[in-house]
Amino acid sequence: MELDHQNLRPMAVGCSILGAGGGGDTSVGLLAALQATEDFGPVRVVDLDELPDDALVIPGGGIGAPLVSIEKLDRGDEILRLLPVVERHHGTSVAAIMAAEIGGSNGLVPVVWCARTRLPLADADGMGRAFPEVPQMTMELAGISPNPAVMTDERGNVVLIDAADGAWLERLERAVSIEFGGQALSTEYHMTAMQARTATVRGTVTLAIKIGRAVLDAPDDAVASLLSTINATALIEGKITDVDSRVAGGFVKGVVQIDGVGAQAGTSLRLDIQNENLVATRDGHVVASVPDIITVVDTHTGRAIHTERLRYGQRVTVIAFPCDPVWRTPAGLALAGPRAFGYDLEFAPVETLLG
Amino acid sequence: MELDHQNLRPMAVGCSILGAGGGGDTSVGLLAALQATEDFGPVRVVDLDELPDDALVIPGGGIGAPLVSIEKLDRGDEILRLLPVVERHHGTSVAAIMAAEIGGSNGLVPVVWCARTRLPLADADGMGRAFPEVPQMTMELAGISPNPAVMTDERGNVVLIDAADGAWLERLERAVSIEFGGQALSTEYHMTAMQARTATVRGTVTLAIKIGRAVLDAPDDAVASLLSTINATALIEGKITDVDSRVAGGFVKGVVQIDGVGAQAGTSLRLDIQNENLVATRDGHVVASVPDIITVVDTHTGRAIHTERLRYGQRVTVIAFPCDPVWRTPAGLALAGPRAFGYDLEFAPVETLLG
Repeated sequence: MELDHQNLRPMAVGCSILGAGGGGDTSVGLLAALQATEDFGPVRVVDLDELPDDALVIPGGGIGAPLVSIEKLDRGDEILRLLPVVERHHGTSVAAIMAAEIGGSNGLVPVVWCARTRLPLADADGMGRAFPEVPQMTMELAGISPNPAVMTDERGNVVLIDAADGAWLERLERAVSIEFGGQALSTEYHMTAMQARTATVRGTVTLAIKIGRAVLDAPDDAVASLLSTINATALIEGKITDVDSRVAGGFVKGVVQIDGVGAQAGTSLRLDIQNENLVATRDGHVVASVPDIITVVDTHTGRAIHTERLRYGQRVTVIAFPCDPVWRTPAGLALAGPRAFGYDLEFAPVETLLG
Repeated sequence: MELDHQNLRPMAVGCSILGAGGGGDTSVGLLAALQATEDFGPVRVVDLDELPDDALVIPGGGIGAPLVSIEKLDRGDEILRLLPVVERHHGTSVAAIMAAEIGGSNGLVPVVWCARTRLPLADADGMGRAFPEVPQMTMELAGISPNPAVMTDERGNVVLIDAADGAWLERLERAVSIEFGGQALSTEYHMTAMQARTATVRGTVTLAIKIGRAVLDAPDDAVASLLSTINATALIEGKITDVDSRVAGGFVKGVVQIDGVGAQAGTSLRLDIQNENLVATRDGHVVASVPDIITVVDTHTGRAIHTERLRYGQRVTVIAFPCDPVWRTPAGLALAGPRAFGYDLEFAPVETLLG
C-alpha cells in the first residue's frame, strides 16, 4: 500500500478518532502529509513481517501540548537532522519509520518523515491510541530501551538523551520540549524489526484508514457507521456545557461537561483531560477510563474533536472502545492506567462498566 | 606541577576569590578534590604549550544554582560517563581537562575529573573568574563551537546537546540542570590545544594557588596581602545589613547591603547579585561592575564569602579587580557586560571608576 492524497484523508480522520482527543490536531498533520507526499512522492507502508529481522525501525513523532502544535508548525525537514544522529549512534541505516503513537497528528508526522527520506512507514505504532507521556509505549512494556532519544526543533537544535529510565526520559524530553516553545519532534525506543513485531500495536495505519473510510463513506450516518466499525459504545449524545482547561507543565489539562440532549436529556457526563480524554463519569459513575479509548466526536459528522478544540455549545457524541489488550495487563495498567494519572480508580474494561 | 593536599587548599582559597561570589562553594569542591587526589593520586597541571597542537582539550564543570550545589553533591565518577560520550563524538581521545570557569568550586571540579581519569589539568580556564551563564566563555568570543555539550547527573542520565547557538545552549543546559534538581555537570567548547592557547585565560590555576597563598600566608593581614597580590581595591569595609536573595530559574538572584564601619561609617554599598556579584553601587554611584571582578571577603581572614553564604551581620571587605582584557572588548562586553544582565549601565573599568 502507498499513502497519497486519496488515503491520507481517511487516515487523518481515523488517527483523530484513535487519538482519544490527543496526539495533536490532524488537520495540521494532514496538510503537512499531503504537501510532503506531493513534493516527494507517496509513502510506502510495510508490514513488519516484510522487513528483515535486523532492520532498524525508529518510532517518532511530536511531543508537547497539542494546543501549541496548532500554531507552532514543524518545518518538515526535521527528520533530516534526526536521522543522521540516530544512524551514527546505532552505526547502521534506518530501514523504516513508525509512528510512536497512531493517535492524532502524531500518526501523520512520520508520513512527512517517510516522504522526505523515502523510507517506508511501518504499519504499527507504540500505543494503538495516543497517550500524554513519552514512555507510555508498548515498547516500554516490552523492555526495549528508550535510549537514545533524539529531539529537534525548527531552529536546528538537537538534543540526544540517554536517560536513567523511562520516567527520566519523560522528564527530560518534557523539559526540552517546553524550552523549545511547547512542541518538539523526537524519536526513541529504536528497535529491530524482529523486536518490533511483538513490541508494537500492529496494523494501526491500516486500521486508521479503515476507520476514516467508515466515517467519510457514511455522511448521513457517520456515528453509527463508526460505532459498528470499531465496536465502540456511545456514552452520551449531548451538548458541551462547560470547558475548563489550561496549558500547564507542557500538557493541556482540564475538565469538560456534556449534558445529554433528546432521549438523553437529564443525563450528564464529565470528562477529565490531560492532553487526552482520560476518565468519563456519567451521572456520577465512571463509565470508561484510560487506557480504554474515549473520543469526543461531532454528532453530525462523526469526526473526532481534539481536546484543545472542545468548545461550549458543540453537539457531540462521546464514544468509548477497548484499548489494545497489552494495556489491560498489570504492567500496562501500571504504566498507563488511571492511577498512573493520579486518579484513585481501579480500571475496569469499558465493556464491563457498561455491561 | 602536581596538585595535592598541599596546594589544593590555597588553590581553593584563590578560586573562591576569583569567583566573584559564584562558581559554587569551594569548601565542597575542595573536599571532593582532596578525596579524589588521595584515592587516585595527584593531578598533573600542564601549560597549554606543553600539549601537542592537535590535542583535544575539554573544559567542564558544574552548572546550576550555587545554593543547590552545597547540598546536592556530585558522586565523583560523573566524568567516567562524560568522557566516553565526548571521545566517541570526536573520534579521538581527550588529552587534557580544563576548568570552564576557574572561579569557585568549578575551578576544583576538573581536579576530581583529572584524578579519576589520570588526565592532566590545563593551566587555563574559559573565564578567568566565574560567570552565571554557560556561553559567557572566552571560547565563545574566540568562535569555538560549544557543540556538543554533554551533561550528566548522579543518577546516570546523559544529555548531549547540539545547540543552534550559545544562547540556545544556555537555555537547554539550564532547563536540563533544573530538571536534574538544580545542579548538573557539563562539558562544552571542546577544542584543540592550539585553539585553546589563544581562546582561554591562561595560567589561572597557578594564579589561584598564588592568591590563596597570599591570603593563607598572612593570617594577621590577609586582606592587605590579597589586595597587593592581585592589584585589587577595597570598595568598602563594613557589615552586611541586609540580604535579599532567592533561587529563581536556576540562579541565585538578590541584593545585598553593606554599611561601612570604622573610618567608613556613613558609607554604604549595594551589591546586585545573579549567582555572582555583578554591580557594586557605593553611596549611589557605581564603583565596579561585571565583567570586572567584585568579591566579598571576610575582613579578618581575607577569604571570599560566596553569594549563597552572605548573611546579616558578617564583617566584610568588598574588593574589586580587573577582569581579563578580553572581557573589556566590545564583543566581551556584549556577552558579559552589565547590559547582558539587564542593567542599563555603560561598563567602565574599575580603575577608572575609582580614579
